[in-house]
Amino acid sequence: MLKKYYLLSPGPTPVPETVLAKAALPIIHHRTEEFSNIFMEMTEGMKYVFQTKNDVYTLTCSGTGAMESAVTNLFSPGDKVLVIVGGKFGERWGQICKAYGVNAIEIPVEWGCAYPAEELEKALKANPDAKAVLCQLSETSTGAVYDIEGFAKVVGKTDAILVVDGISGLGATPCPMDQWGVNVLLTGSQKSLMIPPGLAFISFDDKAWKLVEASKLPKFYFDMKKARKNLAKKTTPWTPGVTLVIQQLEALKIIKEQTMEGILEHHRILADAVRAGVKAIGLELFATAPGNILTSVKTPKGVDGNALVKTMQKKYMAYIAGAQEPRKGEFFRLAHLGYMSGFEMIIMISALEMTLKDLGYPVTMGAGVAATQKVLQEEWK
Amino acid sequence: MLKKYYLLSPGPTPVPETVLAKAALPIIHHRTEEFSNIFMEMTEGMKYVFQTKNDVYTLTCSGTGAMESAVTNLFSPGDKVLVIVGGKFGERWGQICKAYGVNAIEIPVEWGCAYPAEELEKALKANPDAKAVLCQLSETSTGAVYDIEGFAKVVGKTDAILVVDGISGLGATPCPMDQWGVNVLLTGSQKSLMIPPGLAFISFDDKAWKLVEASKLPKFYFDMKKARKNLAKKTTPWTPGVTLVIQQLEALKIIKEQTMEGILEHHRILADAVRAGVKAIGLELFATAPGNILTSVKTPKGVDGNALVKTMQKKYMAYIAGAQEPRKGEFFRLAHLGYMSGFEMIIMISALEMTLKDLGYPVTMGAGVAATQKVLQEEWK
Repeated sequence: MLKKYYLLSPGPTPVPETVLAKAALPIIHHRTEEFSNIFMEMTEGMKYVFQTKNDVYTLTCSGTGAMESAVTNLFSPGDKVLVIVGGKFGERWGQICKAYGVNAIEIPVEWGCAYPAEELEKALKANPDAKAVLCQLSETSTGAVYDIEGFAKVVGKTDAILVVDGISGLGATPCPMDQWGVNVLLTGSQKSLMIPPGLAFISFDDKAWKLVEASKLPKFYFDMKKARKNLAKKTTPWTPGVTLVIQQLEALKIIKEQTMEGILEHHRILADAVRAGVKAIGLELFATAPGNILTSVKTPKGVDGNALVKTMQKKYMAYIAGAQEPRKGEFFRLAHLGYMSGFEMIIMISALEMTLKDLGYPVTMGAGVAATQKVLQEEWK
Repeated sequence: MLKKYYLLSPGPTPVPETVLAKAALPIIHHRTEEFSNIFMEMTEGMKYVFQTKNDVYTLTCSGTGAMESAVTNLFSPGDKVLVIVGGKFGERWGQICKAYGVNAIEIPVEWGCAYPAEELEKALKANPDAKAVLCQLSETSTGAVYDIEGFAKVVGKTDAILVVDGISGLGATPCPMDQWGVNVLLTGSQKSLMIPPGLAFISFDDKAWKLVEASKLPKFYFDMKKARKNLAKKTTPWTPGVTLVIQQLEALKIIKEQTMEGILEHHRILADAVRAGVKAIGLELFATAPGNILTSVKTPKGVDGNALVKTMQKKYMAYIAGAQEPRKGEFFRLAHLGYMSGFEMIIMISALEMTLKDLGYPVTMGAGVAATQKVLQEEWK
């Protein structure tokens, strides 16, 4: 049979055709007025996504590069920070701190669970010398979303800053930087921003900039003071991903047209539709604090979780994501992130039903799809 | 909500991404060895689709242009031909004949129905001076497929030739030109051939070439003797659609990889899956002789057929086709043609269920999808 590739993962996510087409246009030079105009318009659009009046800096790197830029620009050797670790990306904050000699106190959180702001308040009181709290908006490895609004409130009462990795979350779940008082917010291009991997974005408020001024960790490519100086001249310190910037401007036009409220509501509807389908199949959600970015689902008893993901991907070419080590096989992740429509949710749930049937799991074909359809039909605008 | 465009019509059909990408490459000149090599390789591939050892000529025009080329190259003023008219495209044969002063005897066939070869045999006996029988492989306006193998047998016993419009049918339902003894076969690029509209292909056997040699109708752009002379020199008389030829070569690689048997079986599975879905919803097929190209479905009682198509297209962006005049609203057409995967059938049936619900028609959400899934899950390879 002729098969098609369906990218249903929490990053990279599908890219709109009008955005893909921009990659076929000739490369323009980055030290020109033409590119500066595009770059500044894109930067303005990104401030809308961040919901901030602060500058937003464009880095040509993956989201991990932006995480590193946060650490190396904010801290000095031996600085103490609190890191909320509820999955692979919380762990990554800890790894970056370790690589640069920052003293990361890890706060373990059960995978998929919330972490109450009151607990963070206690942790900050126990560590009055902590320079920052590092966490995710959405922990991509589980789909859990943290209470960033609550975190910002308790961190805001201290001298510490709140550094939020919004790589999979920003643009899919609310995180208005200025309104909530997030001090540093960063994201990547290949999630809700609807372009290929290769760009990352980061913003610092005034409180964070004070730490940047005092920071003594080594940095060069990710030097934010250089980035700030160059942004004032409508450019970047180093050669930016020209095509990606042009594509990002195009994708931001879609976001602006839909409005941030509309985009967030879209993700909410898709999440509801997928969860209705999963529950109708009789499966259980893995995360107890799921966001609207992705839905992690427990592998049902008697089914090999790795075979499930492999069948979805290889037989049906429905590229959902498995769980990561050390929880591989225990659950799987269905994304509803970025340029996905209601019908991708139907593809996902129908492929899941057919896969479960292939693997001998008792499933009433169409029951999950019907529940997904019901949510979509009622909410489709 | 973010919506995506789903092209589910019997032409144009979706184009594979690897084929679309070829349109972004620079245009090469057509009077070069480089292009001649591409053109001849594409022509060889097309002979595989036609299942013929005859030459296949590439015309830069739509399928209708190829139909006109058949008429103007085969006949002379006042020639009598039999035309099987079971829908809009049968009518088109008659219109072209009329425009050129060919005496077309129209054989009316109820829309959506078969026409028995025995009836054609009788018609040929009643019209021993008929030069040709003109018909469709698949009547795109209804989805009915004719018994071309049977037609070829009865026409083969006479001096007449069989001219088959395979525009929507070739590559989706069997029509091996040489094996069946079809004298003239033609098709368009925007159906099972999986490229954008703009090219058409036509092939004549020796019996047909004798008529071409004797033809006195006026022609210039579509002059097949010029085309034959140029093909011998590995080129075309006029500037060909260079990009479309390059795209066609790319698409033919997919067909060759799948094999003709595989491609035909793929269309059979999709057709079965769609019909299972339609029947499970409780709807009736319109055509009594449906092929594997498209499924025409009667608009159920109490539903406005035009509103149904409009809701599918505008609300769900599922671009199925309505019926054409004078049967508009009476039925609608679900395509399973070209670069469509099993999941497009699921999108189509789920959108149809949601649309019927929107229009107040009693539908058990998911019942049609389940039936479609069942066929797909059992047959998916």
